[in-house]
Amino acid sequence: MNILIVYAHPDPQSLNASLKDYAVRHLQAGGHTVQVSDLYAMEWNAILQADEIPERADHRADILREQEKLRWANTVIFQFPLWWFSMPAIMKGWVERVYTLGFGYGVGEHSDQRWGDRYGEGTLAGKRAMLLVTAGGWESHYSPRGINGAIDELLFPIHHGILFYPGMEVLPPFLLYRTGRMNEALFAEACARLGQRLDTLATTAPIPFRRQNDGDYDIPAMTLKATLAPGAQGFKAHLAQPPSLL
Amino acid sequence: MNILIVYAHPDPQSLNASLKDYAVRHLQAGGHTVQVSDLYAMEWNAILQADEIPERADHRADILREQEKLRWANTVIFQFPLWWFSMPAIMKGWVERVYTLGFGYGVGEHSDQRWGDRYGEGTLAGKRAMLLVTAGGWESHYSPRGINGAIDELLFPIHHGILFYPGMEVLPPFLLYRTGRMNEALFAEACARLGQRLDTLATTAPIPFRRQNDGDYDIPAMTLKATLAPGAQGFKAHLAQPPSLL
Repeated sequence: MNILIVYAHPDPQSLNASLKDYAVRHLQAGGHTVQVSDLYAMEWNAILQADEIPERADHRADILREQEKLRWANTVIFQFPLWWFSMPAIMKGWVERVYTLGFGYGVGEHSDQRWGDRYGEGTLAGKRAMLLVTAGGWESHYSPRGINGAIDELLFPIHHGILFYPGMEVLPPFLLYRTGRMNEALFAEACARLGQRLDTLATTAPIPFRRQNDGDYDIPAMTLKATLAPGAQGFKAHLAQPPSLL
Repeated sequence: MNILIVYAHPDPQSLNASLKDYAVRHLQAGGHTVQVSDLYAMEWNAILQADEIPERADHRADILREQEKLRWANTVIFQFPLWWFSMPAIMKGWVERVYTLGFGYGVGEHSDQRWGDRYGEGTLAGKRAMLLVTAGGWESHYSPRGINGAIDELLFPIHHGILFYPGMEVLPPFLLYRTGRMNEALFAEACARLGQRLDTLATTAPIPFRRQNDGDYDIPAMTLKATLAPGAQGFKAHLAQPPSLL
């Protein structure tokens, strides 16, 4: 497979850098072709400017290169440390600039009957995506009743709104907590667990998000039909099967 | 009151710019003192670098200026267009760089009995915060069963994880949808509604997030005590009163 790793960490001596290097080696040893967009090393321009906004967009070379990598990839891994409960700004700015009108959104027919190809359809349909996220806090802090908010809900805007939106299937995330207490044994354990996930990228069942255009939503209100999961509200309503964690 | 508006939109001709200008004029006419951090106009450096990470931090002048504005303010308004279901990268990078160790996090005693001053306590305790968010989509798309995800849940990582975390009380957001169909009458309507919210910044009831150190959470697991809201999971578990929208 062709695998793209979009990677954001400023420190080449970091745990994230070691995990990224491990992932590249492991995937290459498995016969895959890997490209890495190392956003800090590339000095990625993360700031969407007014003259790049939709109708005025004059796509720049850096954006076109990233779009080409996305088209090339079968699977895309987004790797980052959880900063303030989301992705680092440099990666958010990658999304904002690379997901241009006609590529990341505004794809397909828009009418009273159809609100474009998105949420399961779009430019990146047929590809798979997975988050690889590290956090300093404990796993319990991100558990269903943990004070930071349940990790599944914290990642929903990325999983559903950034990965599923332009059509990718979204695999359950690879999560590593308590990064501050890392040592050699724990790192080896993390690599073993990550290796298993990398070996099963093609076969792991994706998160069962409901597809926009398969009949589950009223259009143009874009609300879940009253007959489906009656009473369900919030993020979990957009899962076709009962969630295990939400 | 002293009011800080942290503002992110690249286009000075935009709806967001007009709303920001209205807010400044309205607040000043009401006798308030207003400062605006216009992140695009300031060419804010949004990229946290390795040499700014905690222990190595050598706080830069731009960071200190923003921290000083936060200390000065009684109320902080964060204004931005919703891009990919969160704040623009330039504002996320403002949070990452301005919320330094000892200012935005790592405040207060950390032990087995206490996990610092956060979630209701911290450097910004006693202040109020409000989001002012515009979205291109319809309100129904962000309703409790809307395809984009309920807006209360989409904003939770910001409300709870960025505003409440360092101690601010969080007011319900000011939201403006369908920005693409704006006209003079709709703009006047939006300003009237915004004016009401600005006139009641000091009296509006905040979102009733549970405070970390008031006894609701087990420490150090930091999970909601089993006796409280039994069965509740996810974001809504962190509200002390039943949510209206979640």
